[in-house]
Amino acid sequence: MKIVRHRIELVTTAPIEIIDISAQIRDIVAGSGISNGLVTASCLHTTARINVNEREDKLMQDMLTFLKRFAPRDGDYLHNLAPIDGRDNAHAHLIGLFMNSSETIPLADGALVLGEWQSVFFIELDGPRPKRGIELQIMGQS
Amino acid sequence: MKIVRHRIELVTTAPIEIIDISAQIRDIVAGSGISNGLVTASCLHTTARINVNEREDKLMQDMLTFLKRFAPRDGDYLHNLAPIDGRDNAHAHLIGLFMNSSETIPLADGALVLGEWQSVFFIELDGPRPKRGIELQIMGQS
Amino acid sequence: MKIVRHRIELVTTAPIEIIDISAQIRDIVAGSGISNGLVTASCLHTTARINVNEREDKLMQDMLTFLKRFAPRDGDYLHNLAPIDGRDNAHAHLIGLFMNSSETIPLADGALVLGEWQSVFFIELDGPRPKRGIELQIMGQS
Repeated sequence: MKIVRHRIELVTTAPIEIIDISAQIRDIVAGSGISNGLVTASCLHTTARINVNEREDKLMQDMLTFLKRFAPRDGDYLHNLAPIDGRDNAHAHLIGLFMNSSETIPLADGALVLGEWQSVFFIELDGPRPKRGIELQIMGQS
Repeated sequence: MKIVRHRIELVTTAPIEIIDISAQIRDIVAGSGISNGLVTASCLHTTARINVNEREDKLMQDMLTFLKRFAPRDGDYLHNLAPIDGRDNAHAHLIGLFMNSSETIPLADGALVLGEWQSVFFIELDGPRPKRGIELQIMGQS
Repeated sequence: MKIVRHRIELVTTAPIEIIDISAQIRDIVAGSGISNGLVTASCLHTTARINVNEREDKLMQDMLTFLKRFAPRDGDYLHNLAPIDGRDNAHAHLIGLFMNSSETIPLADGALVLGEWQSVFFIELDGPRPKRGIELQIMGQS
């Protein structure tokens, strides 16, 4: 069994932003020498998440609208009364109760097992940020 | 280490439908020759999801009602203005922001490690569909 | 490859309660003899969940409020008309459609790969309960 890991780093430029990281994941997997196993993409932040969904521009606008309504930034939150890091980001943590910190994707014969319409998104919920990290771990056999 | 994979195929018959796939998963695991490791059930669609919950008829009706209210099918979504595939399914993608694409379940001494009330559900969010797929991967030791 | 598993047991004392289990997970991982691989924390109940989020007291109060509003305990649910176990807990199952039954966390060089603000929470949604269980499985290499 072999384990390869890689840190994906991203810059985000908006309060809420959806970034497709599928191509980066595929590149790292291709270079890993592992053909069968599990790929885990794990977001290292509590105010950003991972989601597998469809990459379609209008849908991604719908997603931003839906996320903003689900837990409005200007809601009445105790966490925002005296934020440790100076950010009013309770909404991002609350959305994060319901979204995934990580995704685990099967790897078969060198390819991520994803359906035709599935992309892997990093979703920023408290941007912009100069540096966001995702741990990519590939565990399996060559 | 050994890896076995199997594609579960389903037909769905309603716009939103909850299908218990626990028995199919157990059968495939039993035939895999793997007794300890991880079982990953990965839905290959962006408008269907996986959830571990209780199989009880009235509760499953409550779930359908709750899902329909959470993102109503007839909402005002940009994605539905000119759908690629002719389906008004923005609601299914939006629900999918918050639900799981996959579940990873420990396998111990030949048995899925699930509690007494836990079943693994495939949840159709944009049906009916003639063919839905779930990749089942079992990785571990005999 | 080596697999170690351990059952974490908890007592819960409130209807909805957030319990940080990061330290327990780290202790079990430290004693496992496995340094690189995957750690899966799998909740064995349909009315409790796992979430990775920030441990901050006021935020955790916001989370309780948000969860209570998302699916109110006194809502009109069919599941509560004749509950099998005498508990009016439909709200907990419905919240569970959107929350995680398990979390899979990479393990690298003996440490859980979590960001600075990330804690692993067990979230009770139908307490209090005298005994809750989480299966912890560590799979990897020394």
